[in-house]
Amino acid sequence: MSLTLYYAPGACSFVPHAALELAGADFEPALVKLHKGEQQTPEFRALNPRGQVPVLVDDGAAITQIVAICLHLDARFPQARLLPAAGLARTRALELLVWMNNTVHPTFTHVFMPQKFTDDAAAQAAIKTHALAQYRALLAELEAAVAARAGAWLGGEAPGVLDAYALTLLRWGGFAGIDPTTLPQTWALAQAFAALPAVARVIERERLKLNVYTPVGA
Amino acid sequence: MSLTLYYAPGACSFVPHAALELAGADFEPALVKLHKGEQQTPEFRALNPRGQVPVLVDDGAAITQIVAICLHLDARFPQARLLPAAGLARTRALELLVWMNNTVHPTFTHVFMPQKFTDDAAAQAAIKTHALAQYRALLAELEAAVAARAGAWLGGEAPGVLDAYALTLLRWGGFAGIDPTTLPQTWALAQAFAALPAVARVIERERLKLNVYTPVGA
Ligand SMILES: N[C@@H](CCC(=O)N[C@@H](CS)C(=O)NCC(=O)O)C(=O)O
Ligand SMILES: N[C@@H](CCC(=O)N[C@@H](CS)C(=O)NCC(=O)O)C(=O)O
Repeated sequence: MSLTLYYAPGACSFVPHAALELAGADFEPALVKLHKGEQQTPEFRALNPRGQVPVLVDDGAAITQIVAICLHLDARFPQARLLPAAGLARTRALELLVWMNNTVHPTFTHVFMPQKFTDDAAAQAAIKTHALAQYRALLAELEAAVAARAGAWLGGEAPGVLDAYALTLLRWGGFAGIDPTTLPQTWALAQAFAALPAVARVIERERLKLNVYTPVGA
Repeated sequence: MSLTLYYAPGACSFVPHAALELAGADFEPALVKLHKGEQQTPEFRALNPRGQVPVLVDDGAAITQIVAICLHLDARFPQARLLPAAGLARTRALELLVWMNNTVHPTFTHVFMPQKFTDDAAAQAAIKTHALAQYRALLAELEAAVAARAGAWLGGEAPGVLDAYALTLLRWGGFAGIDPTTLPQTWALAQAFAALPAVARVIERERLKLNVYTPVGA
């Protein structure tokens, strides 16, 4: 058994990265420098032709897609309780996980990389403005989900993949001019999650600052 | 135990709709007329504040998100083999399922409802053109996945949620001017899937025509 995670600092690969550390897995972290275009090298594209992180290589099998990787790790390390084990609690957690993945995450992509949706500069600016307003509304929805959670963490009594995704999405908001402290429940959750020894190792390896928000004029 | 599925004809709710029939579940199909705005009524928004189908109500609990609903049904009806049960086969199926959900499906939304991404008419036209080219490329990727499948169906030996999603995405292509017969493997899979008695019941209830492509000038 061998596990390698291809990740980029601060990218969505933080979610499986935190999951591996929370599970106490023996894995090799492999840094992919997105700003240097390393996701487009022939070596990386042999692993993931779509040129994206995360990729988890499990005994030679390259697995893509955050949600699939999280479910794979959940099945491999059930004692880590990365997601609730069964029943309606599991369904509710999956509902939140896939919504973060298919709605909140892509909305940030529209803010951060509008060039993925059109080559026209004016249209890119229009997309960005629209997506930023949506992203604010989506983080407010996330804040409500955090406030309504049943246990200490988003999945209940154990920290897991939902908390890692919430931290990532809130952190990205800072780059888009959204002050994380204006979402106090999510901000408190992200800080508590970041302080766990397993997660602190990930934050240190990725050299992440949790609050990247810069007030206008500062 | 009671199950109700809120669906709209030809929408993405086809995926859980087919899953319920394949599982032989005793459920009530509840039609939501999207073109009449029924997804915005107070009654429907009490079930799903986001105003979208599908919603599965399981003993009073309203569950949203196709992927979460499919995993919920898979756990509730394991004998239906809606997804491979375990191991790398399951991970590969989940990888394909979430990619359809977070990438292919939203790309069609950009083609079909560009007004969701900007209020600017010129920018909407630019988004639509760009997304249509991407959608063609994504259906070609799907065609390659269908061609490379290990069994008769996308998930292996049993028809399941992947086949239902593939049918839906290919069918939507027809509305966007993509002739489904130009993707012969996916088209053959969709036709075989549609011919299963359980799926034929869904097609009849939703009154679907499988090939909605109209050649230009016809
Ligand atoms: N659908 C994919 C999305 C992965 C994704 O968005 N990866 C981004 C980083 S957050 C990436 O690698 N971008 C590199 C690029 O676009 O060049 C998933 O859920 O895993
Ligand atoms: N992320 C949702 C997306 C659901 C969705 O896109 N639903 C569409 C139909 S395919 C809808 O209800 N649209 C109604 C509207 O936008 O008004 C999921 O995966 O279930």
